[in-house]
Amino acid sequence: MSQPLSNTSKLCVHTITTKPWPIETAIDRFAAHGVKGMTVWRDALNGRDIAATGQRMRDAGLSVVSLCRGGFFPAATVAGRQAAIDDNRRAIDEAAALGAPLIVLVCGAVPGQPLDVSRAQIREGIEAVLPQAAAAGVRLAVEPLHPMYADSRSAINTMQQANDICDAINSPLVGVAVDVYHLWWDPQLQAEIERCGEAGRIFAFHICDWRTPTEDLLNDRGLMGEGCIPIRQIRGWVEGAGFDGFNEVEIFSNRLWAGDQEAFLGRIVEAYLQKS
Amino acid sequence: MSQPLSNTSKLCVHTITTKPWPIETAIDRFAAHGVKGMTVWRDALNGRDIAATGQRMRDAGLSVVSLCRGGFFPAATVAGRQAAIDDNRRAIDEAAALGAPLIVLVCGAVPGQPLDVSRAQIREGIEAVLPQAAAAGVRLAVEPLHPMYADSRSAINTMQQANDICDAINSPLVGVAVDVYHLWWDPQLQAEIERCGEAGRIFAFHICDWRTPTEDLLNDRGLMGEGCIPIRQIRGWVEGAGFDGFNEVEIFSNRLWAGDQEAFLGRIVEAYLQKS
Repeated sequence: MSQPLSNTSKLCVHTITTKPWPIETAIDRFAAHGVKGMTVWRDALNGRDIAATGQRMRDAGLSVVSLCRGGFFPAATVAGRQAAIDDNRRAIDEAAALGAPLIVLVCGAVPGQPLDVSRAQIREGIEAVLPQAAAAGVRLAVEPLHPMYADSRSAINTMQQANDICDAINSPLVGVAVDVYHLWWDPQLQAEIERCGEAGRIFAFHICDWRTPTEDLLNDRGLMGEGCIPIRQIRGWVEGAGFDGFNEVEIFSNRLWAGDQEAFLGRIVEAYLQKS
Repeated sequence: MSQPLSNTSKLCVHTITTKPWPIETAIDRFAAHGVKGMTVWRDALNGRDIAATGQRMRDAGLSVVSLCRGGFFPAATVAGRQAAIDDNRRAIDEAAALGAPLIVLVCGAVPGQPLDVSRAQIREGIEAVLPQAAAAGVRLAVEPLHPMYADSRSAINTMQQANDICDAINSPLVGVAVDVYHLWWDPQLQAEIERCGEAGRIFAFHICDWRTPTEDLLNDRGLMGEGCIPIRQIRGWVEGAGFDGFNEVEIFSNRLWAGDQEAFLGRIVEAYLQKS
């Protein structure tokens, strides 16, 4: 079990966590609350000068941790898969312009398409964009998603599968984003985090909580402490495996988005220090 | 891949699938549609003479396949765990009275209690009721539940875990209920079904489908063919592992319960023959 966090030096918050705020507000308020890192969702950049937005983040003392999200490689047609590859190339360009060293991949799935077919398409898609990622100096993190998203969002649903696909691709640019929400239930989690760490592939660590009852499959995540995930224990495993990057607060919640975002951000910092 | 089903000789329907119907109506209508087996949820027996209800099912030509559900063994207190054991003993009495040879166990979980603690309590609970199950001639099926229920419904979430706990208990009375809804996403499913079959422990097979999007974590299951689960492929694995029992249609759906149940039952039979 890790020690409690004593400060916010490794606190990163995703733009989607305070979705009602435009990114400019998020930059200002995150910095004012002592947040030190920011992961940017691509929709937050709509209509912005991306390079200038990245500079604004750095000027505010915020590290640009990653760009969310690439992926969604599987498709029923060759044209669909090519469109996904093209979109991931645009994401790499955006990450480079923003100054983000990492893109998080929600790998994708097609309802009704066998999962092993989708996994092969995911591997092909990642390999297709690797040369551009290398040229841009951008790394790619496979994020295994909870099995409740295996129908349409990701055919990669456990740390074991994420490690397996990284082994198959075998590039120093391709690693794993460990998200407690997706993975907390897995009895093999600790062992597979160790395996990932030994390969030097833990690229990101995302936190939030699992509420009981969860009322929406997508947008009912909890603030740390509101649910049942042993966040601190899992953080200990990740740190024990050699990860020393940011702890990224990524919460999708209709409930929390509906409230005052300034008060919510205060609660995030408090929960980060007390419950993470 | 299994062949399509050519008749309804192995079609079982759960009482909860046509929840708006009292069990007497379900018995009559299931029999009229050629359904040959029935799994009874305990709430359907409220206020009934259980032995007489079992006889009514047999008189209508319906096999009593199983009683749903026992389990929910974990609890934060000794008293809570004893209450769960007592309730499972009542379930065994009810199964014996009904003439059901099997009880399906939704094993339980306590939000915030470590999953390995819950798993130990599940094993202890099953072992505590085994003598009574043996005396009654009732078998017990551990049903691994989808990881989205790991918070509060079951700490057993994969076939591998179900096989492991059966190995640990090592009783001919304790096996596994394989439900495609909970397990379809697991890349180890085929191998673990084979392992379960080799041990002679596949006690039940439940079918329905996974809809995209799924709008409710509990009550938005699909009729076979409405979703992405490779039901026929999984049935082939189960049959290949030696299972020759009923294919049980277990659907929880606010949408389908809201419609005409007679028409729904007709669709179930059609989907069973064409999509299972």
